[in-house]
Amino acid sequence: MDGRILIVDDVATNRIVFKVKLGAARYHPLMAASGMEGLRMARTERPDLILLDLMLPDLGGIDVLRSLRDDPVTRDIPVIVVSGSTALEDRLLALEAGADDVFVKPYDDDLLMARLRNLLRCRQALTDLTEGHEAAMLGMAEPAAAYRGPGHLALVTDRPDMALKLRRDLAPLMRDTISVLGHSNALADSDPAGGGPDIYVIDAETAGQPAAATDRALRLLSDLRSRSATRHAGICLLTGPAPQSEVKMGYDLGANAMLTTDMPVAEIVMRLRAVLRAKRQADQRRGQVQDGLRLAMIDPLTGLFNRRYANARLAEMAQSAGQNGRTLAVMVADIDRFKSVNDRFGHSAGDDVLVEIGQRLGSNLREQDLLARIGGEEFLIALPLTTLEEAQAVARRLCRQVEQRPVVLADGEALQITVSIGLALAEAGTRGWEPALVERLIGLADQALLASKRAGRNQVTLAARSAA
Amino acid sequence: MDGRILIVDDVATNRIVFKVKLGAARYHPLMAASGMEGLRMARTERPDLILLDLMLPDLGGIDVLRSLRDDPVTRDIPVIVVSGSTALEDRLLALEAGADDVFVKPYDDDLLMARLRNLLRCRQALTDLTEGHEAAMLGMAEPAAAYRGPGHLALVTDRPDMALKLRRDLAPLMRDTISVLGHSNALADSDPAGGGPDIYVIDAETAGQPAAATDRALRLLSDLRSRSATRHAGICLLTGPAPQSEVKMGYDLGANAMLTTDMPVAEIVMRLRAVLRAKRQADQRRGQVQDGLRLAMIDPLTGLFNRRYANARLAEMAQSAGQNGRTLAVMVADIDRFKSVNDRFGHSAGDDVLVEIGQRLGSNLREQDLLARIGGEEFLIALPLTTLEEAQAVARRLCRQVEQRPVVLADGEALQITVSIGLALAEAGTRGWEPALVERLIGLADQALLASKRAGRNQVTLAARSAA
Repeated sequence: MDGRILIVDDVATNRIVFKVKLGAARYHPLMAASGMEGLRMARTERPDLILLDLMLPDLGGIDVLRSLRDDPVTRDIPVIVVSGSTALEDRLLALEAGADDVFVKPYDDDLLMARLRNLLRCRQALTDLTEGHEAAMLGMAEPAAAYRGPGHLALVTDRPDMALKLRRDLAPLMRDTISVLGHSNALADSDPAGGGPDIYVIDAETAGQPAAATDRALRLLSDLRSRSATRHAGICLLTGPAPQSEVKMGYDLGANAMLTTDMPVAEIVMRLRAVLRAKRQADQRRGQVQDGLRLAMIDPLTGLFNRRYANARLAEMAQSAGQNGRTLAVMVADIDRFKSVNDRFGHSAGDDVLVEIGQRLGSNLREQDLLARIGGEEFLIALPLTTLEEAQAVARRLCRQVEQRPVVLADGEALQITVSIGLALAEAGTRGWEPALVERLIGLADQALLASKRAGRNQVTLAARSAA
Repeated sequence: MDGRILIVDDVATNRIVFKVKLGAARYHPLMAASGMEGLRMARTERPDLILLDLMLPDLGGIDVLRSLRDDPVTRDIPVIVVSGSTALEDRLLALEAGADDVFVKPYDDDLLMARLRNLLRCRQALTDLTEGHEAAMLGMAEPAAAYRGPGHLALVTDRPDMALKLRRDLAPLMRDTISVLGHSNALADSDPAGGGPDIYVIDAETAGQPAAATDRALRLLSDLRSRSATRHAGICLLTGPAPQSEVKMGYDLGANAMLTTDMPVAEIVMRLRAVLRAKRQADQRRGQVQDGLRLAMIDPLTGLFNRRYANARLAEMAQSAGQNGRTLAVMVADIDRFKSVNDRFGHSAGDDVLVEIGQRLGSNLREQDLLARIGGEEFLIALPLTTLEEAQAVARRLCRQVEQRPVVLADGEALQITVSIGLALAEAGTRGWEPALVERLIGLADQALLASKRAGRNQVTLAARSAA
């Protein structure tokens, strides 16, 4: 079910008003009349968003918020607090407790709906790929270091006086670096390596020509969202007390907050903090999904690439070699008499040997070479842009590196280990490369490996034919 | 480097005009003066987008397009064709050859820049997570079936006469289903299971009140993009020959094409086809990334969950059991005398046994139970919401299911196999669950397993203490 919005409000009329509004917009409203009921429903129903009243009979709205944020099941559900109170203190508390936004009654209905779309869209972009496996999949990755150091805030404006005043007001209340950029420099300053600002605050109003300024601010927002260096930044729009109605479009264009120049400085600071917090959480989740994807290509024991990845990568390398008319060398290396290591010293000793040999092979290859563990004690090595002579020299060096000093086990036992290697070379010439070539190449290297084994091990054999 | 745009145009003045425009917008222009040079640079520089002139001295623009689309390295780079020709035939050819859009001179500069942002944003949303490993990572997953059946197109309009005429015009030229929806039904009709329309064509103009219609169309576009059921649909805006200037905003809100009522029907059809093609490619890539993520949790031999996933999932189950005050049963099952299977019949026979036993265990568990291969011949089983008596009954049933008929190897040899099981129960009571509990629980089950082995194998032992 799509667009399930939980309304937590003790006043029946309020719930009904929301229900009608949300229903008209084709959302599916769920309703809770108390804080406890709201918490329970949040946990069992897992709504897509929560509209939370601050004044509840049993549990205060702030306590509900804190409980939602403490529970892994509900932690990431966006919450909009709808408050009858105009007290600054209440807004600050709600933002601090983890509200994504606070709307004070009476508020602009269209703006609330725009914010709703905006938060739903942000959330889905992250949950899209993990399809209900979020927690377990993300749990598989190492928890990202919760870096909570100072951020970098950029004020983008062509009104330097306003910017300087705002910076003067904010600086004592924030640990973050605050820089001021002209509109035309905002894009130039973005750093693809990720060292750019965490948050952009874009001035959407210039005294005298507000419509043009709004237009320009929205375009810059879209522009920042379309560049890889800045697309995950937090972006806020800053307007005067009575913004142009077009500014609402900012939420649909991907703004993370709307600030007004008449907001108390403490509230601006708290809203910026909420944006920075959300940005860092999103960064962390993206990092965990990337880690999850990386796990799919790694052999857990040795940390080398696994067979699945090696096959796909080798196909890529072969295609690229074919296009450039270059050769590609492929080796299969196998640890000699590995079974006897396991039998005599146990599986744990065998594991130690695999890890150590993997490291020795890797430290003798170039960055662009591929090294993977493709079987129990079998490794695949691919060397792009390499001649036959070079490949043979590398293979012989690998044998020596394994042979020349023993592998020392955890208990101090020193084992003499050797590897046998089969080598095959693909010379593409001008012909195209097809997937079958990769398999043929590995097959040839495998046969050459067998020849090395038969000839007494600890040596390199070149495949009889090249796989052209 | 961010926002690298390759300009392929043989007229130096055109290249310079583009270079200035793109530079002013803080993109990084690259330039090629011929088709061959364009192809070469596309391959070596891998730009983020290509602006391609159709009239080139060496290779026609259409041939350049086809080559770009044939090469896996350049296949996914967005291409905007900029054509001096007003001939319909040229536009159709370009769209058919894989252009993402065609702009005919003289065109609206702002619209071109909006389209540029739009295409860059679409592309990055997909490449974001794979970080340069795209090809190999996606190659790891099974290639998605290239389903090219008819699509479902929804015309969203409150002008039924216009819709019926358009449908009449389109129907003979398209294999796709075409339905007509009123504006207020467009969201209601979305189907979260993914059976909804592939493409929405939103009428952005209503005779008499174009400004309000544009506004409503843009809001619907944003709304569709914020709902999980429709966020990946293709969305087109349909305007009259002279659209409101606000319509341009559609690209920044995520529209995939702009259609006008005065476009030749053949061109509308070709643009819709291009949108459908792009949508299906994006669906396919998302599916491949999801497959990649799934691979990270699967043991390749048995297809069961792996240890990494099992640990994370077990922590989740334990936490949930703790919150609901329910018990959780955990078993470790180990195949008896597995080493002798490998020694006597070879590794491949051992693999067959592992696969078969995994299947037998799995077919005797419920959907909500967890089954994983956590070691060579060791399986983990977790049963949520299960009493001690139930868990013991399940464990004994599993032993019987393994014991009662032999495992038949590929060569016809029949092996009598048994498993030993250790069982531990977590009774959370009212206390919280911490990660260490999961390890303790597995530890207890492991000890109980050892007791089963010592007592003669093929039996179930309950852990001495429960891990409360």
